[in-house]
Amino acid sequence: MTAVIQQLNWRYATKKFDPSKIVSDEKLERILEAIRLTPTSSGLQPYELLVVSNPDIRKKIRAVGWDQAQITDSSHLLVFAAWDDITPERVNMMFDLTNEVRGVVNEGWENYRQMLLGIVAARGKEGNYQSAARQAYIGLGSALLAAAFEEVDATPMEGFDPAAVDEILGLPAKHLRSVVILPIGYRAEEGDWLVDLKKVRRARENFIIEVK
Amino acid sequence: MTAVIQQLNWRYATKKFDPSKIVSDEKLERILEAIRLTPTSSGLQPYELLVVSNPDIRKKIRAVGWDQAQITDSSHLLVFAAWDDITPERVNMMFDLTNEVRGVVNEGWENYRQMLLGIVAARGKEGNYQSAARQAYIGLGSALLAAAFEEVDATPMEGFDPAAVDEILGLPAKHLRSVVILPIGYRAEEGDWLVDLKKVRRARENFIIEVK
Repeated sequence: MTAVIQQLNWRYATKKFDPSKIVSDEKLERILEAIRLTPTSSGLQPYELLVVSNPDIRKKIRAVGWDQAQITDSSHLLVFAAWDDITPERVNMMFDLTNEVRGVVNEGWENYRQMLLGIVAARGKEGNYQSAARQAYIGLGSALLAAAFEEVDATPMEGFDPAAVDEILGLPAKHLRSVVILPIGYRAEEGDWLVDLKKVRRARENFIIEVK
Repeated sequence: MTAVIQQLNWRYATKKFDPSKIVSDEKLERILEAIRLTPTSSGLQPYELLVVSNPDIRKKIRAVGWDQAQITDSSHLLVFAAWDDITPERVNMMFDLTNEVRGVVNEGWENYRQMLLGIVAARGKEGNYQSAARQAYIGLGSALLAAAFEEVDATPMEGFDPAAVDEILGLPAKHLRSVVILPIGYRAEEGDWLVDLKKVRRARENFIIEVK
């Protein structure tokens, strides 16, 4: 069994965190770095990641998050917030950054920039947001594995009112929209109904289709 | 540097695969298993994964995939295909499977089933598909890391005509829709314009927002 499969088997959607246990700065930074390094379509990274430790703000989020205790009991709450639109300014920001980092401007890349500007203009704001939201989920996949490698528990959650969370975090002013939240921390020693239940996944033959 | 960060730095969006190099069954199975084990919202796993090795079918996909050579030159082409709807039958299939695997039926879980059935009915087919598509991207995140840990190259691609790919693969009859494809294999020794260029990501301060 490889380390990746081992850690995927180790992790589970923790239902009860121990509020007294805090994720160290070192571990937190490594999890954030894994998310930051995760690839996205055209390299746009069309989302930002909020790391919420403030207890009052987390209480407010819990109130619009089905009162789920993990929001306040975890060590940190990660909020994946997608760009509300993929504007020409944002596309140009990433293409300019790419040219700057690589120290070259090449024609193929500049042609691709123009094509992408055309695509996002045609797709419109809502379509661009939906596309950006999907990219955030690649980062979520990395976050889950990076946390598991640190033996940090993590529970992906979509059960919250996104518009209310956006207001609490001031996201409209940043042109961001919350898409998924991830409390991270350490499982409580007792009281988690899920921890001893078997992980359930469809069998390979009901999930994989081979086209030979 | 942790293994996760190291492998995220190692990987890149391979532009030129060596068509003579095939990913071994053992490595392929471990990558597929990582995707299968990846969590999804409410545990639904609302997507399936096609593993396309057939050269004729890959030629057809390349023709509707911006003629990108990775589609045919890679060892295998993975196609993430989301459920076109989250129907009551599909929800019940996963909840029944869960009861069967765990050998228990509990009231909280059954109440959650009813609530979820209400949510998907209210959201409608297109909303359910969009939600399912997001979940597939968590699996994409796992796939990228699992491949990197195997030192297998992988290039996530959204540049294709999804409806045309669906037709080629017979997905409408399976009530699936293609969302993202991932050629996997081994980089060619020469001719990849991207391999020697620096990876570009926004700096931490332009990607992470701390709410203390």
